[in-house]
Amino acid sequence: MNSELSSQQVQDIGEQGLLERLQHFCSPEIIGDDAAVLETASEQSLVVTTDVLVDGVHFSNVTTSPEDAGWRAAAANLSDLAAMGASPLGITVGLGLPGEVRVSWVERLYQGMTECLQKYNTSIVGGDIVRSPVTTLAITAFGQVHPSQIIRRSAAVVGDAIVVTGVHGASHAGLQLLLHPELRQNLKDAERTALIRAHQRPQPRLDVLPILWKILDSPSKIQNPKSKIPVAGMDSSDGLADAIIQICRASGVGALIEHRQIPLPKVFDHWLPQEQALEYALYGGEDFELVLCLPQELASAFVQHLGEGAAIVGSITSGSTVLLHDEQKKFPDRVLNFSQGFQHFGQ
Amino acid sequence: MNSELSSQQVQDIGEQGLLERLQHFCSPEIIGDDAAVLETASEQSLVVTTDVLVDGVHFSNVTTSPEDAGWRAAAANLSDLAAMGASPLGITVGLGLPGEVRVSWVERLYQGMTECLQKYNTSIVGGDIVRSPVTTLAITAFGQVHPSQIIRRSAAVVGDAIVVTGVHGASHAGLQLLLHPELRQNLKDAERTALIRAHQRPQPRLDVLPILWKILDSPSKIQNPKSKIPVAGMDSSDGLADAIIQICRASGVGALIEHRQIPLPKVFDHWLPQEQALEYALYGGEDFELVLCLPQELASAFVQHLGEGAAIVGSITSGSTVLLHDEQKKFPDRVLNFSQGFQHFGQ
Repeated sequence: MNSELSSQQVQDIGEQGLLERLQHFCSPEIIGDDAAVLETASEQSLVVTTDVLVDGVHFSNVTTSPEDAGWRAAAANLSDLAAMGASPLGITVGLGLPGEVRVSWVERLYQGMTECLQKYNTSIVGGDIVRSPVTTLAITAFGQVHPSQIIRRSAAVVGDAIVVTGVHGASHAGLQLLLHPELRQNLKDAERTALIRAHQRPQPRLDVLPILWKILDSPSKIQNPKSKIPVAGMDSSDGLADAIIQICRASGVGALIEHRQIPLPKVFDHWLPQEQALEYALYGGEDFELVLCLPQELASAFVQHLGEGAAIVGSITSGSTVLLHDEQKKFPDRVLNFSQGFQHFGQ
Repeated sequence: MNSELSSQQVQDIGEQGLLERLQHFCSPEIIGDDAAVLETASEQSLVVTTDVLVDGVHFSNVTTSPEDAGWRAAAANLSDLAAMGASPLGITVGLGLPGEVRVSWVERLYQGMTECLQKYNTSIVGGDIVRSPVTTLAITAFGQVHPSQIIRRSAAVVGDAIVVTGVHGASHAGLQLLLHPELRQNLKDAERTALIRAHQRPQPRLDVLPILWKILDSPSKIQNPKSKIPVAGMDSSDGLADAIIQICRASGVGALIEHRQIPLPKVFDHWLPQEQALEYALYGGEDFELVLCLPQELASAFVQHLGEGAAIVGSITSGSTVLLHDEQKKFPDRVLNFSQGFQHFGQ
């Protein structure tokens, strides 16, 4: 790219010019009509989720390249689909841009989005580009799920095991390393890079759904095929504590979480005090793992199939309290709530 | 509403508080999961369209109440669905808000959206509310259409009649009356109100689709049922000239438009010079009528069923020129293009 092109601003080529430059990031079949048309499989429900991201509020050039901002935005929406048990059909991208934004910045944003989408076999199927005083990204993702496989927050029952599909705290650690480079002391380069990567390129866990359906398949054969799947869940985008509390509230149950069962990045052992490591995991957010509640026997088989990082972190209890328990009794029992995280990490 | 409540700002109750206040505007079944789940009929294609609207760019408190801004935003998206032949399944609403926006303003915005959606038997099925320095509204609408009934811009063929489903120019006239109240001279109150209403409360023409399918039903019975419907089209949200030119470009054809056949609001006869009336109709935009191209015989029957305002305004020709012809020869033949409208009315 020559310097003239790389310094070109949105106002130099206009919204129509920008649309033309971005067309190759989009599904070819969707261009040139009032709306996109998508084929859906028969007997599937449509799942829809939407996020708005604002420059300076949800992303920033300080910690995030445009490619990473794009990846993260796409990943967050795909994670919401995964949390419902749905496979993606596509996303629409609404973009508000000040005239002085560089065209290359927008192209890099779309590059990051499409890298993430391609990894999960989906694409941008529509959008809108408008002038705005502040860069704004509005993504709507849609997916499909068989009605019998919808994962809801409200389906947890007493006795369920609580499964997390991977380690927690890495994304927040990566963000802290970007904001405070001096924290890299005591970290090898590869450890630092891995944590930052966890923040910049989170992986929506669409990959765990086929494993989940396989595990559920054997017992369901003897159940009524129309019965609901015995799984509750959501993603941990707002933190592990938030996910567990939300599921408990929606299901009218409580939970007992075993402190030592929460999977953390190995590097935390020698890098962070235990209390801080726990807080990163519970309240850091943006790990985009799934938190799923299912019968103990199925949960054990599920975790075994998922491999490293996945764990049963506790169980669903009667009542409404989410209790954090340390079997080593180094920490007293604590009730988890939403606000603790906001006090520590809120803006 | 007492004065304390009416002056409450978004920052006083936070995004969570605002979400709770807005829940009653949304479909009850969608609240409390990572994404909304919608049922679709079998053998339907999914149609998706998205718009971003920014305060000061796309709406303004000068000409638009929050209710009207909400109505217009919903109507524009439903019109895009109608233009594809699709019936609505729901919309998602992404909202960026400065903290000092009044809660009552947001409630009135949602009131306007839901009034429009309810009229067309659909609803808000999901959303996101975030902080932003500028009020931003990102709407994504979903609809469904049988694959054989998808209306595309690219399907016009030489000889087709060009049908408009209603009068053009009223919305732009209404906007001018709001911006320049002195223009109301020579207008009765009811005439002025009707034009302003056309601007503030445009009607997406979802109502014409059942009529269209009925008209198409008889001949299609003797056709191959899998053959595509012989209809091309889009909506006239960006002006009648834009719609005709877009269809011609996408279809690789031209058009001959009869000046005197373009349906105008009756009041234009004594209120506007002929040339200006024509410009309002061709380039004013936001009338949200459908512009459809179909065989002459079907077009005649269709227009008859649609009633007042609907008209055949011309026909599809070979070549690539969109020619405006005045049979009274008061105006010379003119080639229509995109830029003329922008020169007259662009920002």
